[in-house]
Amino acid sequence: MSSKGEFGFIDYIKTAFPQPEGVVGIGDDCAVLPSGEGELLFSTDLLMEGVHFLRDESSPEDVGWKAAAVNLSDIAAMGGTPVATFLSIGLPKDAQSEWAERFIEGFASISRQYEVPLLGGDTTSSLRDIAVNVGILGRCPSGKRLMRSGAKVGETIYVTGPLGDSAAGLMAILKGIDKTEEVKVLIQRHKRPVPRVKEGLLLRDSESVGAMMDISDGIASDLRHIMKASGVGAVVELDRLPCSPEFVSVCDEQGWDRYYLQTSGGEDFELLFTGPEGMEKDLDINVYPIGRIVPGDSLQWTVADKKVSLEFNGYKHF
Amino acid sequence: MSSKGEFGFIDYIKTAFPQPEGVVGIGDDCAVLPSGEGELLFSTDLLMEGVHFLRDESSPEDVGWKAAAVNLSDIAAMGGTPVATFLSIGLPKDAQSEWAERFIEGFASISRQYEVPLLGGDTTSSLRDIAVNVGILGRCPSGKRLMRSGAKVGETIYVTGPLGDSAAGLMAILKGIDKTEEVKVLIQRHKRPVPRVKEGLLLRDSESVGAMMDISDGIASDLRHIMKASGVGAVVELDRLPCSPEFVSVCDEQGWDRYYLQTSGGEDFELLFTGPEGMEKDLDINVYPIGRIVPGDSLQWTVADKKVSLEFNGYKHF
Repeated sequence: MSSKGEFGFIDYIKTAFPQPEGVVGIGDDCAVLPSGEGELLFSTDLLMEGVHFLRDESSPEDVGWKAAAVNLSDIAAMGGTPVATFLSIGLPKDAQSEWAERFIEGFASISRQYEVPLLGGDTTSSLRDIAVNVGILGRCPSGKRLMRSGAKVGETIYVTGPLGDSAAGLMAILKGIDKTEEVKVLIQRHKRPVPRVKEGLLLRDSESVGAMMDISDGIASDLRHIMKASGVGAVVELDRLPCSPEFVSVCDEQGWDRYYLQTSGGEDFELLFTGPEGMEKDLDINVYPIGRIVPGDSLQWTVADKKVSLEFNGYKHF
Repeated sequence: MSSKGEFGFIDYIKTAFPQPEGVVGIGDDCAVLPSGEGELLFSTDLLMEGVHFLRDESSPEDVGWKAAAVNLSDIAAMGGTPVATFLSIGLPKDAQSEWAERFIEGFASISRQYEVPLLGGDTTSSLRDIAVNVGILGRCPSGKRLMRSGAKVGETIYVTGPLGDSAAGLMAILKGIDKTEEVKVLIQRHKRPVPRVKEGLLLRDSESVGAMMDISDGIASDLRHIMKASGVGAVVELDRLPCSPEFVSVCDEQGWDRYYLQTSGGEDFELLFTGPEGMEKDLDINVYPIGRIVPGDSLQWTVADKKVSLEFNGYKHF
């Protein structure tokens, strides 16, 4: 790739991402899109080598997948439809050929799956660390986007899927435990998270959701964002947090604290939302009640309806 | 700042960038804006420590200024109006307090000057290198954006201001020459480029521009983008490239090759555009004719109307 140089790499990217009709994509000073109807959504995430991924542990394809996935998840978290991505990539010399091409393959494979075109970006060299920034543009009918600030006292708190798999997968990598089939499933969940775009759209269209966000830092941290933005408290029943069978089995085998991984591990990228009790009966997707919104400003954990005083905290970057 | 942590830093950013009415800015999963009229423009640039700036040489305020400036310049290059920026920043431990706050000050000062709000982003730690990515959203009336592909044979090639100052300023830094008043001017041009947003809008409204882009890599490289996109050749009269008096004086003193710096140095962030001969008479801004669009696909340099065969090339990242 370094033999192709920067402009050769950009040509390679253009081939990997067919540019749709009616827009100006890769190749000018800006991408150009019609404004369209409703509201625009925009989010961006920066992944740094050594912080978000290790070159020895994650394949370039996995990093490419995840870079797009975490951004698609932000659009899902608002109940939006993803429209286009923009990729900036800083590459040290030893990542400018094979690593870069394989990264693009992973990024292109999830982009095809979610039918989201890459319309622009920036390629540059880097001194030491790989840096990958993805920006994503989405749309939503006016006033329909689901915010963190919409939770109301009395609502039930839900998640769209099992929690803790990603954290257990990361723990398995870091501790270097045997890669049984179950462990492999957890590692895959960590490396290839599935953004809940379809679920986000269905929940938006249900018109019964109060607040919504995606779980990136763990519910111990993320639920507090909803509480703060909405001015409410919450009770979470730890024994109702949905678990995958692989998660239960590996945690039991390794003696890992399930509740800790489920609440503070993060990177599940399931949706966390509030709504009327029983709303799950009217939905065409599986959602799991895990607690309720209460007055006040504190987050209370319970097990078998008994309060437990555990100080869980989500991941903070610095 | 590290004592404040990631969320304290985000609060600091919110204070530095007042959030406008009618949008959802910093603090939810996505920023939310009304779609508005016309077309959307989007661009993004990644700055890496050690490649785009050196911590010893550029103040954090200057890096913050430049990170916003290069993106504003991309919107200017399409003849667009900047609407909002999105900032991702990866900070190693030793840049998480003072460096980060001062960077935000520089970013905020140019944002105020151009009245562009920061509506979102991402903050994260970094292992070693500082990484700064800015995304920018702009608008333009439908079909009015100025592309690289619009140059026509017979048009004159123009620039909006002197070329070479930034390259000479960088050269002065790298060579460590005495910082006379003139040298300081050049260094300032390198560290605090002025995006030509007002000029871009005037040129768009003139309805006579063929192709336009901003000069980031040097005209030797950038003009070739216009030639390739438009399917044309070009002749550039090196002795008509506008020079600042400081540039002439310092180059003469130091024995630096003026033509090389002016064509291949880059980072001038002046606008490079094509249009009918004499169009400068009808404009309220100064623009400088530097050559003309010709048939073919080659870039010819002349001095005193005589062909010169110099192999100038713009900066490539890898």
